[in-house]
Amino acid sequence: MTDPSPVPVRRKKATRVLSVSHCPPDKSPHAGDTDKVPRGLADLRCHRVQESLLSSASGYSNYRGVLNWCVVMLVLSNARLFLENLLKYGILVDPIQVVSLFVQDPYSWPALCLLLASNVFIVCALHMERRLASAKLSERFGRLLYTLLLFTILCLPVLVVLTVVSITPVGAVFALGVYTMLFLKLFSYMDVNRWCRERRLAQTRALGRSQSVPLIPKANGEVTVKEVMYPGNLMHRDIYYFIFAPTLCYELNFPRSPRIRKRFLLRRLLEMLFIMQLLVGLIQQWMVPTIQNSMKPFRDMDYSRIIERLLKLAVPNHLIWLIFFYWFFHSSMNFVAEIMRFGDREFYQDWWNSETVTYFWQNWNIPVHRWCLRHFYKPMLRRGVSKWAAQAAVFMASAFFHEYLVSVPLKMFRLWAFMGMMSQIPLAWFVGRFLRGNYGNAAVWISLIIGQPIAVLMYVHDYYILNHEKVL
Amino acid sequence: MTDPSPVPVRRKKATRVLSVSHCPPDKSPHAGDTDKVPRGLADLRCHRVQESLLSSASGYSNYRGVLNWCVVMLVLSNARLFLENLLKYGILVDPIQVVSLFVQDPYSWPALCLLLASNVFIVCALHMERRLASAKLSERFGRLLYTLLLFTILCLPVLVVLTVVSITPVGAVFALGVYTMLFLKLFSYMDVNRWCRERRLAQTRALGRSQSVPLIPKANGEVTVKEVMYPGNLMHRDIYYFIFAPTLCYELNFPRSPRIRKRFLLRRLLEMLFIMQLLVGLIQQWMVPTIQNSMKPFRDMDYSRIIERLLKLAVPNHLIWLIFFYWFFHSSMNFVAEIMRFGDREFYQDWWNSETVTYFWQNWNIPVHRWCLRHFYKPMLRRGVSKWAAQAAVFMASAFFHEYLVSVPLKMFRLWAFMGMMSQIPLAWFVGRFLRGNYGNAAVWISLIIGQPIAVLMYVHDYYILNHEKVL
Repeated sequence: MTDPSPVPVRRKKATRVLSVSHCPPDKSPHAGDTDKVPRGLADLRCHRVQESLLSSASGYSNYRGVLNWCVVMLVLSNARLFLENLLKYGILVDPIQVVSLFVQDPYSWPALCLLLASNVFIVCALHMERRLASAKLSERFGRLLYTLLLFTILCLPVLVVLTVVSITPVGAVFALGVYTMLFLKLFSYMDVNRWCRERRLAQTRALGRSQSVPLIPKANGEVTVKEVMYPGNLMHRDIYYFIFAPTLCYELNFPRSPRIRKRFLLRRLLEMLFIMQLLVGLIQQWMVPTIQNSMKPFRDMDYSRIIERLLKLAVPNHLIWLIFFYWFFHSSMNFVAEIMRFGDREFYQDWWNSETVTYFWQNWNIPVHRWCLRHFYKPMLRRGVSKWAAQAAVFMASAFFHEYLVSVPLKMFRLWAFMGMMSQIPLAWFVGRFLRGNYGNAAVWISLIIGQPIAVLMYVHDYYILNHEKVL
Repeated sequence: MTDPSPVPVRRKKATRVLSVSHCPPDKSPHAGDTDKVPRGLADLRCHRVQESLLSSASGYSNYRGVLNWCVVMLVLSNARLFLENLLKYGILVDPIQVVSLFVQDPYSWPALCLLLASNVFIVCALHMERRLASAKLSERFGRLLYTLLLFTILCLPVLVVLTVVSITPVGAVFALGVYTMLFLKLFSYMDVNRWCRERRLAQTRALGRSQSVPLIPKANGEVTVKEVMYPGNLMHRDIYYFIFAPTLCYELNFPRSPRIRKRFLLRRLLEMLFIMQLLVGLIQQWMVPTIQNSMKPFRDMDYSRIIERLLKLAVPNHLIWLIFFYWFFHSSMNFVAEIMRFGDREFYQDWWNSETVTYFWQNWNIPVHRWCLRHFYKPMLRRGVSKWAAQAAVFMASAFFHEYLVSVPLKMFRLWAFMGMMSQIPLAWFVGRFLRGNYGNAAVWISLIIGQPIAVLMYVHDYYILNHEKVL
């Protein structure tokens, strides 16, 4: 036992293992004497004064693993929810049912007729612009006609939806969405063409005053030769390119990408098809049963159950919204842009990092944000409206269109969507005033995750009460 | 309309707004001419060629907001689970019931008696060491006696638990846990004292050979004077300090903290009390009903329901384990250490970042890890055992104690805990071989989150089958 003969070999191993371990370095006063003492003596000391990592005194802050923990927990929790749902309801996904959402009466396709009718407005706008360009129509009368045209664009689908019985809510949302886009696009078309006329007028005046050469040839010649100049843009080809392009802001010379990338196009197409299936599946399998189960607590005004249902709905609703976001703003818009060689692919910004509500609304839907800024917010500022009033007006216009797209198809006017959008103003004030950084970001996420299902439940509840009272 | 008179004021506003917007900078060839053209002309261009952020071509990678999203989603999902649980089961928390877990027969306290009996072993060990130090007992006979003592420490509580009817499973776990700690501590006590004797012998020999001065006075005198030297440590006070200190590794001179920090002590005490309540509440409210609901699918061997129940159990089980970890390794151990002015507070390392299974086992329970390294792994390496075999042996010893602490109190020997620990070896190999970085970390988390409830369900299932067959 006390024979220390094979010491050298053994101590070498012990030292190698010491580096594997997390034992503190030997601070014993005899550390220098290890050559003279037998095995195991380095082990006589194995504690030293130190704080626990989670004590504030330790100064430790590496919790990178916590992010992985969050991801694993989310995946596992949702895997369970998915399985529970499947066990409870069986498979509810039914692709055929989707068709019935669009078509009620196979001999009547009101939504499609509305789509075809929209060509009338496009051609009208083009011909009005041609007359305005050649001064056959006065600016003032042109403006009146445009007001009439834009008003008709908003009202015609409403009339059709409210009078034609065979239109389905989904078909109505689709038609109204297309008409809203048409409204915004033609509004932009009108504005830009008027600006062009104003510039032409200013240039003629400048030319008359200073006898200088026209402004255009001064610029980079190579770019300019290819560019369309003002009345030259008033062609069917040009306005239809704009109507199909994934933007709401008209421009005479859209930036174009050099070629159609076939692989990119194919990837976006596959994404579109797959995600569409996924969305339909999730809604049928997850949203619909959850909403149906929410009706009873809502009628009974059982508040704790309402909150439980609300939180239960929040998860699928939010996931579906996220997937829809990707499907619409990334896959579909990039697909259309690639086909049309439309160069500007900024359809969204990094709204997921937004620390204020305003930042979110400025960045999640860039086409609408750009339109609002260019044709609504800035013109208002130029007319001397204050910044806050202009922002509130933008939110109100947005609230109007949200309500328009929801109330008309459901044929009931409850103002939940309008109030949801308008409540963004005090929310934006509160978040901007009291919350910063990650807290602001978390607040934006919470308002998204909780706000939407509240509005959804409100509408669905009222719709059920109106239409399925006896079924419940 | 075409009157550009108040241009300077208005353009100034428009320019200020431009910086608020995220519109690209005006790259029009006429950008330099804005002074000569009327309002709104900067808006004529508002697109430029650019990729979407989520396209791989954009090179964008700031998803910081996603972490906040994860946290918000986790909190909301669990808030819903909490509410659903409360609505389904009502309030199940019952502090009185906890007492019945420890005491079955108010006139018989077997666990407490076992605790008091443990003093016999401590005093025995001390007196044996005194005799060994004064060479009244030979090393060989001392080792035999120690083996007998340690064997008795492991066997006595098993005998008591298996024979005394009035002991409850929770009381039995408690008693067995204390005896296991006692076993590990006295093993360490024996080893360190033997190393001290070996060193004393080596020093005497060195002194005899080289006639040099004794080694100790060479070191820093100030520190040395306060330190206890070998046979001086064989006191009741010293061994009892070690028994109550939050470590399993004996040392003659533990590092001490300078004073008891009252605020720190109070915070840890409040944490201990609060978290204890929380743990009991979570187990009664969340674990027990989930486990009870899992029994039927288990008996019917309904696999999809078993998986659903397993995932449902995984969340509360994991949260309770995390809270228990904090309660035991941070609050309680720091509390005890603070009272005893024990300096070394490294009770855990940053296991939450572990990218390999081995790193997790080396870092989540530092007292046991240190003991294994110092008294089991390194001595084996010194005896020429290979590194892998030694690691496997450590896992096997750990598996034995896991099984010991579970099977004996439940009075059934199923080897689930043993197999759970042993399965860590192939898991460690797999994770170390195929997964790196965040994937390795996620794999460790998954094995923790999923592995534990599997073992829990196995035992509970078998326990129910044995004890409550008719109840089901």
